[in-house]
Amino acid sequence: MNNEFDWIKSVTPTKTYRSSVKVGIGDDAAIYSHGPNEESVVAVDTMVEGVHFRKDTMPIKSIGYKVLAVNLSDMAAMGASPRYFLVSIAIPKQGWSLEETTEIYAGMNELAERWQIDLIGGDTVSTKGPLVITVTVIGSVITGKRLLRSNAKPADIVFTTGQLGLSAYGLEMLLETGLKVMEDISLRPFMKAHQKPEPQLEAGSLLVDSGYRISLNDISDGIAHEAKEIAGASDVDIIIDWDKLVIREEFLEHSLEKQEEWVLYSGEDFHLVGTMSEADFEKISLVFKEHDLQIYAIGNVETGEGRVFLERRGNRSPIKKAGYHHF
Amino acid sequence: MNNEFDWIKSVTPTKTYRSSVKVGIGDDAAIYSHGPNEESVVAVDTMVEGVHFRKDTMPIKSIGYKVLAVNLSDMAAMGASPRYFLVSIAIPKQGWSLEETTEIYAGMNELAERWQIDLIGGDTVSTKGPLVITVTVIGSVITGKRLLRSNAKPADIVFTTGQLGLSAYGLEMLLETGLKVMEDISLRPFMKAHQKPEPQLEAGSLLVDSGYRISLNDISDGIAHEAKEIAGASDVDIIIDWDKLVIREEFLEHSLEKQEEWVLYSGEDFHLVGTMSEADFEKISLVFKEHDLQIYAIGNVETGEGRVFLERRGNRSPIKKAGYHHF
Repeated sequence: MNNEFDWIKSVTPTKTYRSSVKVGIGDDAAIYSHGPNEESVVAVDTMVEGVHFRKDTMPIKSIGYKVLAVNLSDMAAMGASPRYFLVSIAIPKQGWSLEETTEIYAGMNELAERWQIDLIGGDTVSTKGPLVITVTVIGSVITGKRLLRSNAKPADIVFTTGQLGLSAYGLEMLLETGLKVMEDISLRPFMKAHQKPEPQLEAGSLLVDSGYRISLNDISDGIAHEAKEIAGASDVDIIIDWDKLVIREEFLEHSLEKQEEWVLYSGEDFHLVGTMSEADFEKISLVFKEHDLQIYAIGNVETGEGRVFLERRGNRSPIKKAGYHHF
Repeated sequence: MNNEFDWIKSVTPTKTYRSSVKVGIGDDAAIYSHGPNEESVVAVDTMVEGVHFRKDTMPIKSIGYKVLAVNLSDMAAMGASPRYFLVSIAIPKQGWSLEETTEIYAGMNELAERWQIDLIGGDTVSTKGPLVITVTVIGSVITGKRLLRSNAKPADIVFTTGQLGLSAYGLEMLLETGLKVMEDISLRPFMKAHQKPEPQLEAGSLLVDSGYRISLNDISDGIAHEAKEIAGASDVDIIIDWDKLVIREEFLEHSLEKQEEWVLYSGEDFHLVGTMSEADFEKISLVFKEHDLQIYAIGNVETGEGRVFLERRGNRSPIKKAGYHHF
C-alpha cells in the first residue's frame, strides 16, 4: 500500500449487510433507517495498548475481535441486537505497521460478518503514545423489552451463562509464558476466553424473547462486581453460592484464594449474569438446552440493600472486593 | 474528590434534556426512542494530545468544547439535528489532574446545554500515553432530507457560511506566543475559531429545511480538500474564485502563499461548504440574512471529473494540495 489513504480504503467495507444503511463510510456521518416500535441501543468501549492488551499476550487480530466483542457483550446484556458499529483508532507513529493495523480490522470483521453488523463510520488519527481503539456499537431492541440491571426482585434465582474465570486464568498463562503458550491445546478454552471471548448475543436474545422479568448484566469486571451492580440498581441483596458455581477442574489444584480471584473477582469472561423467578428459570433452562446454550443457577436474591454475599457450605460472608478495573 | 469513581460521578449528568432518553449512563448501554419518519445520524471524532491539541495552545475547557464541536459540525454538514453523545476518554496516568479532566467535560457540557443534547454513555480508561478523547454523536434528520456531498450539479454556485483561515491563523499565533496571546483582544476572533469553533448547526438546519438540492460538507481539512470531496462524490469540477473569498484584513500584509495556506489549505474553521443552484442561492441568502447568518458565493460548479481549480483574476489553475491531515 502506498499511503494511509490506501490503507483506510483497504479497511473500508465494500458492501453492506443491511439495506437500511443509507450512508456509510465516505460522508461526514452515517445514516441508517429503522422500523417502528424499536429502540436504538448504543455502547462504546475503548482498549488501550499496555492497559487492556499487549502484543505479547494478544495476537493482533484478536485485539480487533475483542474490542468489538466487548461492545457486543454490552448489547447482549441489554437484550439488544447489534446492527452497526463505528471505529475510532489512534495509531502510534512508531511500532505498528499498516499491515498490523489492518489485522485489527480483520479481527473486527470476523465478528461483524458473523453477526451481520455494518461498520458505518469512524475516525483515524495518529498518536505519539500507545495504540488506542474505541468502538461504538448501535443496536436495537423492541420497545419496552430491554433487560435492565434494576429488574431483580427477592426470591429470584441468580444465573450465569457459562463458567467463569477462564479469561483471567488464560491471561495468567499468557503473562507467564507469552504467546507460545497458545500451542498447548489443553489451554485453548482459556486462550479463547481471554483473546476471543464469545459475546452472549444468542443468550441475550433468548432471554429478551422470553418476555420474562429479567435483570441482566455482562461480566466484564468479575461476577462479584456485576452482581453488586444488579443488587444496587434493584435494591436487593444477592447471594452467590460457591458450591453451585461450576469451577474448572484446572483451578482445583490452586489455593481457594486464587480460585476466588479468578472466578469471582476477575473480569472479561463476558458471560451474562442476571436474575429471574425460579419458575421462569426452569422454563428458560429448557429453551437454552434446545439451543445448545448453557445456563447455571448460582445463587438467589433476597430482600436487602444492595449487598452481595458469598455462601460456602452454608456459611455466608459479605463480598467486599469491587472487582477488576482498568481505570 | 476521593477517587476516580467520585470523579466519574461528578461528570455524569444528573438530568436529561429529552424525555426520549430511556436509559443513560449507568447501565451497559444507552437506549433512546425516536419518532417515525426520521433517520438517525451518528458521527465519531477523536482528539489526541500532542496531535490535535496541546495544553499550551488550548485552555483545557476548550479541548472538551472542541471535540464535541467537531462532531456537531459533522451533524451540521448532514443537515442533521444532534440529540445524544457518548464520550470515551483515555486519561494519562501522569500529567493530568482529575480537576483538569473534569474541565474537559465542562467544555463539552457548555455546548451540550446550548444545543440540548444528552450525554448518554461512554468509557473511561487509563493510558501510559497522551490523553485521547473520542466523541460519538447521534442525531436525526427527516427521512430523505439529508444533505450529501454527492448532490452537486454543473452550474451550481459554491458557497461557504463564513470567512476561512481564522483557526489556522489563530493557531500560528498560539504556537508562537502561547496562551498569553489570548490577552490581545484584537486576536479574539482567531482564538475563538481555533479553540471554540462554532458548529454551523443553524445554517445546516436552514439549508435542510429549504428543501433545495444542496451538496454539503464541513470544512475540517481546508476548503480545497472539502471541495475536492464534493467534486469527487458528485463527479463535477469545482472552481473556487479567490477574488470572491472574503479575506481577513489581518492576512493581507502576509505573502499570497501564506494567505492561501490559511484560507484554502488549513482546516478546522468548521464552516460549511456546499453547492446549490443560483436561483436557490439567491433565495437562501435572504433567509440567512433574516437569521443573522453569513453565506458567501465563492465559486461555481462545472461539468467535469472531480477536480478543483482556483481562479484568480480570470486565470485558472488546478489545486493540487490535498489539505491538512492529522493522520
